[in-house]
This record gives sequence, C-alpha cells and structure tokens, in this order.
Amino acid sequence: MLYTELKQINTKRENLRWNAWGSLDSDFFYADKIGSLLTYVRHRLHLAEAITPSLRITDLRLPETRIKGANLSALQKIVGKNRVKNDLRERVLHSAGKSYFDVLRIRSNLLKSYTDAVIYPETENEIAKILKLAAQRDWAVIPFGGGSSVVGGVEAKAAGKKAVLTIDITRMNRLINVNSVNQTATFEAGIYGPDLETALGKHGYTLGHFPQSFEYSTLGGWVAARSAGQQSNRYGKIEDVIAALRMVTPRGLFETTHFPAGATGPDLNQVICGSEGTLGIITSVTVKIHPLPQERHYCGFLFPSFKAGLDFIRHANQTEFTFSTLRLSDEEETNQLQSFSRIINHKPDASLIARSRKFVKSSVENILLQANGLAGPKCIVVAGSDGEHSRSAIAALKKAAPQFKGMFAGTSVGKNWLKGRFNMPFLRNYLLEYGLGVDTMETAVPYDKCIEVHRAVLEAMEKQMPNSLRMCHASHSYHDGACLYFTIMFPIDSHAPVDQWLRLKNAVSDAILAHGGNISHHHGVGADHREHFKRQVGPVAWETLTALKKSLDPRGSLNPSKLMA
Amino acid sequence: MLYTELKQINTKRENLRWNAWGSLDSDFFYADKIGSLLTYVRHRLHLAEAITPSLRITDLRLPETRIKGANLSALQKIVGKNRVKNDLRERVLHSAGKSYFDVLRIRSNLLKSYTDAVIYPETENEIAKILKLAAQRDWAVIPFGGGSSVVGGVEAKAAGKKAVLTIDITRMNRLINVNSVNQTATFEAGIYGPDLETALGKHGYTLGHFPQSFEYSTLGGWVAARSAGQQSNRYGKIEDVIAALRMVTPRGLFETTHFPAGATGPDLNQVICGSEGTLGIITSVTVKIHPLPQERHYCGFLFPSFKAGLDFIRHANQTEFTFSTLRLSDEEETNQLQSFSRIINHKPDASLIARSRKFVKSSVENILLQANGLAGPKCIVVAGSDGEHSRSAIAALKKAAPQFKGMFAGTSVGKNWLKGRFNMPFLRNYLLEYGLGVDTMETAVPYDKCIEVHRAVLEAMEKQMPNSLRMCHASHSYHDGACLYFTIMFPIDSHAPVDQWLRLKNAVSDAILAHGGNISHHHGVGADHREHFKRQVGPVAWETLTALKKSLDPRGSLNPSKLMA
Repeated sequence: MLYTELKQINTKRENLRWNAWGSLDSDFFYADKIGSLLTYVRHRLHLAEAITPSLRITDLRLPETRIKGANLSALQKIVGKNRVKNDLRERVLHSAGKSYFDVLRIRSNLLKSYTDAVIYPETENEIAKILKLAAQRDWAVIPFGGGSSVVGGVEAKAAGKKAVLTIDITRMNRLINVNSVNQTATFEAGIYGPDLETALGKHGYTLGHFPQSFEYSTLGGWVAARSAGQQSNRYGKIEDVIAALRMVTPRGLFETTHFPAGATGPDLNQVICGSEGTLGIITSVTVKIHPLPQERHYCGFLFPSFKAGLDFIRHANQTEFTFSTLRLSDEEETNQLQSFSRIINHKPDASLIARSRKFVKSSVENILLQANGLAGPKCIVVAGSDGEHSRSAIAALKKAAPQFKGMFAGTSVGKNWLKGRFNMPFLRNYLLEYGLGVDTMETAVPYDKCIEVHRAVLEAMEKQMPNSLRMCHASHSYHDGACLYFTIMFPIDSHAPVDQWLRLKNAVSDAILAHGGNISHHHGVGADHREHFKRQVGPVAWETLTALKKSLDPRGSLNPSKLMA
Repeated sequence: MLYTELKQINTKRENLRWNAWGSLDSDFFYADKIGSLLTYVRHRLHLAEAITPSLRITDLRLPETRIKGANLSALQKIVGKNRVKNDLRERVLHSAGKSYFDVLRIRSNLLKSYTDAVIYPETENEIAKILKLAAQRDWAVIPFGGGSSVVGGVEAKAAGKKAVLTIDITRMNRLINVNSVNQTATFEAGIYGPDLETALGKHGYTLGHFPQSFEYSTLGGWVAARSAGQQSNRYGKIEDVIAALRMVTPRGLFETTHFPAGATGPDLNQVICGSEGTLGIITSVTVKIHPLPQERHYCGFLFPSFKAGLDFIRHANQTEFTFSTLRLSDEEETNQLQSFSRIINHKPDASLIARSRKFVKSSVENILLQANGLAGPKCIVVAGSDGEHSRSAIAALKKAAPQFKGMFAGTSVGKNWLKGRFNMPFLRNYLLEYGLGVDTMETAVPYDKCIEVHRAVLEAMEKQMPNSLRMCHASHSYHDGACLYFTIMFPIDSHAPVDQWLRLKNAVSDAILAHGGNISHHHGVGADHREHFKRQVGPVAWETLTALKKSLDPRGSLNPSKLMA
C-alpha cells in the first residue's frame, strides 16, 4: 500500500491560493529556512534584498462581469443558483493557470482578461446545455479542472467573443467503476490526483500517475494536456493509460469504447488526448490500473558529466529492465540541489550525535567521490524501480554505472526525492515575494540531440538573462530519447516583468525548435506555446487540426487562442 | 542473429500469384500431404470430392482501361514509360487484396471493378504530381504496397470517379538511416518485411514486426492498416513503434518529427497510422528498433478449457514479465491443429528409428495428459519470450500454469509454430481448388467479454453455416484484453459464393459489435468493415473523421469507399 500515504489536500475553492501555488493549508516544507535560501540565491546573483509583495485580492480591478441578468439566469436555470459564481474570488481563481507568467500577472493586477462567470456542472447533460447556451450567446468557454496549467491552458482569453464562461468540472469527481479482470477503472474527469489514488488504493490498485502538480490537478486535465508523471517510465504517460473516454462537444457526445487495441482507423483516444479543451469537455476516463507494488527501490548515482549521465539513462532504457524514475540533473542543478540541501539540513539545534553522524557520513562520501574522480562538477541521477523486479533492476544499474564513470550514491537521495517531489512549486511562492522569478521550460528530444538542445537552451537563457541561475534535468526518458526540463531563477525586472518573461520564453522556445526538440513534453501547448506549436507541426498538419476543431466546435466557443483554436 | 534466418522472397510482380496467396516460388510446406488433409476435411464436413479450379488469367473479361491516350501519356510524363502499366496481369494483380472474398472473386471473374492503370513512383515529388493529375482528372487513387489486405483495403473501387489509378510504392524500398543512439531506423514505406529485417539484421537490430503476411506486406501497409505482428506482445503493434513519418497528401507533405514523447496536441502519428490510404500516401517511416535478442524460448502449454487458458494469458500479461507471443487456441482449433499435425507428420517412408522415437514421445505425452486430467478437450498455448529475461519469463509461466489447471507441453510446439507461422495462408490456395472456403475474422475484446464474444461469434458462424469447421485463438494479448481470431472452413456454395460470404461476414461482424468487440484488431477496416466501423465509432466521431479526410483530400481522390472515405 505504498501510494496511499499521499497527503489528502483540501481543494475546495475557498482553500486555494489565488496568487500563488497550492492551497492555504499547504506550504513549502522548509519555510523556516527561507531566509537562508534567499541569502544564498542573492549571493549567487549579487543582489540586494528586495520585497515584492502581492496585491491584496480586493486591490485587483476587474472589469464588470458580462454574464449577468438574463444571461446569468439562463445559466442558473441549467445548474441551479448555487453552482454559478461570479464573485471576485471565483473569477480571479479561474482566470489563469499557475505558471510564473500567470502568477506574476495575477498578483500584480497585470492580467488583461478575466472570466465573467464560473459554472460547476455535475452531469454531461448540464454540460451539453451550457455549451449550447454559450454557442447561442457567442461566449468563449474554458474547461477548468485543477487549473494548474503552466502554459496558459485555462487563461480567460475572450478572443473576440462576447464573454468568457469557465466550466469548472471538479464536482464531477466520482469513481464510477473498478474492473479487476481488465485492470481498468473509470472515473469522472474532475477527480483530483490524491482522491483518485485513494479510491484505487482501497481496491489494491494504483494508476501510477504522479505529475508534480498531482495534488492540484485532475484526471481530465491530465488527459486534456497529455500529462506525464514522475513514474511514467513504468506506468506510461497519460496517453498510454487511456482505455476509453467520453467528451461532450458542441456537436454531441464523443465517446470511445474500451478495446485493448485496434486496427480501426486513426486512434480516437489519441485525438482527444492533448486536445486541451479545444474540442470538447472530457467528462469521464477509463484508465489502465496496476496492483500496488509491494516493493520499491529508489536511490542515487553520481556521474562526472551530463553526457555520461545521459549515456547511463539511455543504457537503462535500452535494456530489458523497467524503471519507474530516472532523473538526471546537470552539473548546475546538482550543485544547486546540494547547496539547497545543505541549507535545509543545517540544524543549529540538532543534537551533537546527529551532527557528528552527518559529519562522518559526509566525510565518507567525499572520500568516495574523490576516489572515483567525482570531486569536481558532477551530475546526480535519481533512479527508482517499483515492483517484483525492482531490486534486480537497481542491482543492474549499480553494475552498469562504472561503465559510465558513475558511482552509486546511496538510497537517501531516492527517499528524499520521493518525499519532496510535489513540494518544490511552493518555493516559488516565497521567491516571488522577494523579487525573484523562477520558471521552467521543457522539451522532448531524441538522445542524439540532447546535448545540443541542452547547450542551446542554456545559451539562449544566458543571453536573455546573464544574471540568473540556469539548470536542467532529464526528467523522463524512453527507448529513443528524453525530456529535458530547464529551470531558471532570476531577478524580476519590476519595471517590465511581462516583457522580460516574454523575451525569455520566446528565446527558449526558438532555441528548442531550432535544435530538434518539441515545444513541450508534458506541460502542453495552451496559449503560451501556440505559435511555436504551429511552427512545429507545419502548415498541412495545422490545417488538419483546424478542420478537426471546426468539425466538433463549429462556432469556435471552446478555449479560443489555445492549441490550434 | 535470430531473425535473419528468414526466407527471402521474390516479390517481383511477375512472380506473384494473381489468383492465390503468395509468390510462384513459394508453396504450402506440406503440399505433398494435401490429399490426406482434404480427405480429413471432407470427412469432417461429410462432403464428396469436388474440383473448383481457377479460371486462367486470359479467361478474365476486364473492362477496357479508361487510362489511355493523353491520360496515359500524362502519367508517363511523370515517371517514364516503363513505370506505368496497364496490361492484364498488372491490372488483375492490383485490383483486389488477398482475402478469401478477394481471391474467390478474382479467380472466377466475379470482381466488379478493375484498376485502369498501375504507376510505380520512386519519389515523393512524383507522387505529388500523380495526386495532382488524379485530382484534375477526377480519378480514384489507390495506394498499394504488398496488396495483402484482407478487408478490401486495396480494392479497385471507382466510387463514381472517372477511372481508378493504383499507385504501387514498392519501388520506394530503401533503408534511409539506422540511428544506433536513438535505436531508430528510417525506411521508405514500400519495403517488404524480409528486406526490412535483413537490412536491420546487418546492423544487429530487428523491428520485431512479424504479421502473418510478413513475407508479402510492406512497412507502409503495416502503418496504414495498424498491423500487428506475432511478437507484438513484446515489440508493440506497429502504432507503438512509429517514431515519425512522411505522407504525401493532395494538400502537400504531411510530415511528423521524431520526438520520444510529447504534449503537443493530438498525436499526429496516431492520426496517420490506420488511415488506410484515405488521407495520403505514406512514403517513409522512422521506427523504433531493438538489438537482435540473443536468446529466445518458445514452448507449449495445455489447458482444460478456453476459459482456463484465457485466465492464464491474462495472468501472464498482468505480471511483470514481458512475453513475445501468447497464443491460445480453443478446443476446436487445438483439435484441428492436432489432426493436421498427425496427417502432416505421418511419413510412410520414415525410418524405423524415427517412427519409434515419435511413438515413444507421443505415448509419454498421452500418459502425462491423462495424469493431468487433460485427456478430454483441451486448449493449447504457444508461449514465447525473447531476450535476456526470456528463460526466467518462461520459467515463471511454468510455475504459474498449474494454478490454471495447465501443464507444460514441451518446446517442440513452440519450434514448430515458429517454423510454420507465415505458411498457413498457402493451405487456402489448395482448399479453394477443391470447393472449400476458409476465412478468418478477428476482434479485440476486453478480458471480461472474451468468453461472451467467443461464444457469440461461433454461434453466428454456426447459424450461417451449420456445416463448417469453426475455431478460434487468442492471437495477441494485453494488460486489459485480447484479440480473438476466428477461422471458418466450409463448402463453397458454388451457385452464390459471394452472397454466401456476405451473409457470413455480416453475421459475424454484427455479433462482434453486439457483444463488445471492435471490428478489427489488426486486419483493418477497408471496404469490408466500413459500415460496421461507422457503427462502432458513432456519429460524432464519424463526422470528425470525415472532416479530417476532407481537409487533406478535398476532392476525395484517395481510396474511396474505404474506412471513412
């Protein structure tokens, strides 16, 4: 029962932070060390102290809602009065996602467009009626699950429509069925990650899908945005686990049936998966599930270079073992992780015994590193395997590491990573309060282009923001390539923060496409990647996607200005 | 170097049989036993001897070609005189696929429509010009690889167009690139199976894709029709191995780029895969490849019932081991395989020593079967695993079998199956000469519906053709379900053979859909499954597919009356 230890989150709307990541009852695990962390980052970036607090929500100046009077009544007639909202807090919460760009704008009243109302349907029939009304009134409709998009996927863009209506589907959150013969389960799409895993755990199963947003994102959102989880090496990306789904479109219900495989034309599940709310609203999903693994082994390895580490994870993917996680940090990220870890673990009040244990351990580690020629810059790999063969899988890695000049770095690395894996976004909440921006960009790249894309993106970042911390890890890896996940930490240009970000984003996206990566491995396209996505697929595919859109949403109501919409 | 032992086939057009499966230089391995096999089948079906020879090709009455004069010259101008054909043999060879229905009609001059000309492009540029000309002249265009479709996928249907032009792409058959870092390879789409494996084998790799049609089908055909191979449990169906592809459409080149994964909208590879020549002509495919396995273990198991065998293969798929092949025959098919095997292996001139060895072996087998309660009806499983873990994978199966009342049945079953796996279609060539029809139908079904679909299809077959041999095997299996593959052998109604087949086909397709199967797991949709496919996907998806078609082929030139076209 390994995955049921997950923290249950209160995701009620009143408990969500409108101007930061997460919910009010959750925080950065090391909030008490923020001072030291800030000192460290300022030191690295040669910065003076700065304070950049968020506005209060009541300071925000929203345009008056365009959905009122008869329009509001029409919506209320469909779902009842209590499930249509247009108060300030609901509108703010539902007008953007959770990217740096989103949070930056929303906390400073820089967001240009707000949703006019939020509706909470509970049935497909209600959604169908809402879509019909929206088409009649020429409104934009924005499907909303956890709202954790970091690519502008839920942004309240009106795109010339007369109003923006957000459809929040999180009241559609039931487990419909667990089928232990087929090892599948059907859920309503609005269920949050922890609720889904808890429901499956009671039956002895897991979906095994753990994106970093896990606690604040929904099954429907994962499917709409082609999400990846931190154990996707083993369980597959979300597109690999879909057995069937239902989507309400302006043209009617688009439903696929569960077949284990097929030779019946284009794969319709793979057309809907990744459609990001532009083709319809996903209402339920049947997914493949797995018995909860009874064993798991997570550990660390160190390599002298990113190249050596990449060769190692490529080797691991091209052997016969299955790994759940293979996460390789480059030199700079490894360095940052070590620095952060030192700050976080520095406990002035720790007992002498604990401190001396730590000292002995770190001395031994240093001697081992020296002996292995790893005293200089080095790259850490977090490797994990779940299930019956996990011990032998990790043993095979240990055996292989020296071929790549790597060394085993113990199991605590793995345990710590598992513990903190959903928590890092909370650090951003604090950095933003102190003038520091942090953003992440990612791409999937064939192995033979990884080094080039790694170099090109870091160079593009440096060119835009010479005074920044820039780092990367390979977050997911496959038979034929990996996802490179970049993080940049920088002083916010408080005079032109939006332009500063747009220049950075554009430069990075250009570099990714120019060197053979795609515009996203798991964040999605949304509004932020739309133009680069168009370049990525080329004119013929673009026309095809547009035709697809037009066939299901002829009035163009759904999520305008996202993906191909 | 296991897969390079494959037989090289001469697939030159003059060497292909126009009225039967395969090439002139290949035959049923046991052609010398045909007399005994026929006697056995006649006995089972209470039939008298009958002879139903094919017409000679010169007896066929084809309508005069509509592509001549200026039309012919225009095509010749694109590719040169030698690569446009409209002689009798070329037209006949390219007017239908290789299903029972196709061969039945073609050998008896019952085919209603013939292609008017066949063109052999060598470049994408030539294809683009051909498509442009065809649109101008309002011709139907039929993409053709190996022509081994068994669902009418290459049939020369004019569908109201002014002529039918078949584009045979088998001259586009080069290996373009092997990338050993990414473990991918790029081929032109017209390459035949054995040529592809031979080319990869020289580099130490395999694609691992072995449909029964392997010797007579092409990579482009596999991708267009969502093919499955006999080792797809391990290597994936063809849709799982596509890294990128190129397709020439009437609207221009549709090209995807190789990314190991992505969150960039609908999966375009999965839109093209299965498009069956209705959206464009696939010209090259980048596929994932694997080092040739150094070990493989294939063997047999026996189970007291189809249900017990299904539970066993389900168990195998839901464990942590990977199997290449898990093929479960039902009682009747096991019985037929044993009868056929007895006939084939009966060698009156065999040496005494060999005969006595066989006798001893079969006695021992019988004693074991009795001891295991398997003397009555029983079901055989062919199980195979390739690669480093194959021995332990099979050992795990041996250990698990008794839980399902099964027993290990030795390795010769596996070896014999591997040896004869591409050869069975040649038996049909003989049966057709002697008044006997044989057809196969297949579907993918979730595990919990397998028994019901098995029963329903066999009942539908029996109702249509009480005097027939009806049998089934689970040919492919997955985490969540299996492919059920049915075979029926029956006396041809020589007065109305087409109606006889249409009634059978319709009844079986109805039964499949009514009980939860899809209309095909790996044969495809083509012309034969079009109406049932339409029912399977429902009206909203159908409209979407039609919109997709219209966006890439606005004139409707490509493969009309197939799939959604």
